[in-house]
Amino acid sequence: MNSAMQMMQMHEKDMSMMGMDMAMMQECMEACSACEQACTMCSNSMTGESMATCMGRCANTADMTNTMMRMMMRPNGMHKESMMAMLQAMITMCGACAEECMTHADMSDDCRMCAEACRQCAMACQKMMDSMMGSMAGS
Amino acid sequence: MNSAMQMMQMHEKDMSMMGMDMAMMQECMEACSACEQACTMCSNSMTGESMATCMGRCANTADMTNTMMRMMMRPNGMHKESMMAMLQAMITMCGACAEECMTHADMSDDCRMCAEACRQCAMACQKMMDSMMGSMAGS
Amino acid sequence: MNSAMQMMQMHEKDMSMMGMDMAMMQECMEACSACEQACTMCSNSMTGESMATCMGRCANTADMTNTMMRMMMRPNGMHKESMMAMLQAMITMCGACAEECMTHADMSDDCRMCAEACRQCAMACQKMMDSMMGSMAGS
Amino acid sequence: MNSAMQMMQMHEKDMSMMGMDMAMMQECMEACSACEQACTMCSNSMTGESMATCMGRCANTADMTNTMMRMMMRPNGMHKESMMAMLQAMITMCGACAEECMTHADMSDDCRMCAEACRQCAMACQKMMDSMMGSMAGS
Repeated sequence: MNSAMQMMQMHEKDMSMMGMDMAMMQECMEACSACEQACTMCSNSMTGESMATCMGRCANTADMTNTMMRMMMRPNGMHKESMMAMLQAMITMCGACAEECMTHADMSDDCRMCAEACRQCAMACQKMMDSMMGSMAGS
Repeated sequence: MNSAMQMMQMHEKDMSMMGMDMAMMQECMEACSACEQACTMCSNSMTGESMATCMGRCANTADMTNTMMRMMMRPNGMHKESMMAMLQAMITMCGACAEECMTHADMSDDCRMCAEACRQCAMACQKMMDSMMGSMAGS
Repeated sequence: MNSAMQMMQMHEKDMSMMGMDMAMMQECMEACSACEQACTMCSNSMTGESMATCMGRCANTADMTNTMMRMMMRPNGMHKESMMAMLQAMITMCGACAEECMTHADMSDDCRMCAEACRQCAMACQKMMDSMMGSMAGS
Repeated sequence: MNSAMQMMQMHEKDMSMMGMDMAMMQECMEACSACEQACTMCSNSMTGESMATCMGRCANTADMTNTMMRMMMRPNGMHKESMMAMLQAMITMCGACAEECMTHADMSDDCRMCAEACRQCAMACQKMMDSMMGSMAGS
């Protein structure tokens, strides 16, 4: 476990007051971080005319995943509605990026692996949102 | 008009195919940029215990506005549903940040001015989203 | 004058203790912001094989200019040696990006305008660094 | 090994032409990523008046480490002199952030762990720069 994860656990109490599952959030942050890295690389290796959409969506996804990850690391700034709206935006963007990358997966290993990282990230965000919704319903 | 705005206009054709009003988008980008700057400064000047929420929300808003602005600058990566979901997240977050900053507006000029920049940004994003919804309905 | 600039002026005293000229720093922040926008757009419109270097350098420059601008907006975090090392990195990167963009300036208006924004940014950073060096020598 | 690391290895040939040791660069990227996370959290948990410098330096370091990591992920945009100037800026900033955090390490676990992440990052950047200098001398 790295130091950021240990730091998160020290703030567990603040998080759980927001109805957030700490283990799930750590998983989501790691998926975001892996997705940011894959998208940054994929975006940079797309050089053909036909790759313009892929390049643009990957660059957008890289920026969004970094922002999402940082939001999860700021217990003080946590605002439930904003967090859920951002998770929704992530699920939509990661899905669109994975879809585009998959159309080139046969020709490009970058795209194939990036699509997989986007899918993992979308799933982790969805899981997180479901859990937050559940805790809102229960409160 | 600065060079980025001139560059946007050269790509006007790509944008309008997405049902986006170029002038409105430029206005929105400028509101995002001003909001990022105000939130970065406000977040950094909040030092009291009672300012923790303000500091955290401002930091989140600064990161989100930069991401939003970059998404608008990438016609190739434009994906309408993702853009609208991100606009929705912006409106929610900017509103929550303005609300928090307003509670300290009497004591802090930073907060008063940051709240105003957040409100302007939320309004520009709302206007943009209304326009995109209108164009979807009409298509 | 926008609200971020007004906020900077309220913190003028903190800055001048660091030997920083406020007007020069505002000019530098605006040049960074314009450069980030131009590079984000230029990076996204480069789609040919021969544009790979241009795309990559522009993406690097966009990230660096945003970081530089944010560092100038945090009087509390100001550390003179780090600031000067970052200004030096900016001058080098903006120069390399302008140089690459200029090789395509005849074919691409994006590149021509981006090169100009990079040059302006490098000059503003150089001016800022010269001024900080002068104030260190004098202190 | 995560997907970003696998993607890096597929681009190993481009990197080694720049005189870069792939394993060392991966280590450096991971140290940057861990440092960004620790600094984002540490910056957000600093709420006392006496923590203003810590908060500001951590926020600067978080932004710089993300930029550094992204630059390493773009073989196409790699420009040796800019990379080395950025590594130098990183070493200086991470050192200053670690130094500040250490002054509160007794009172704050966040600061103690953040200082450690900054030190690791500075060392990884130094190692990378030494290796690049060696390869320049040898070429």
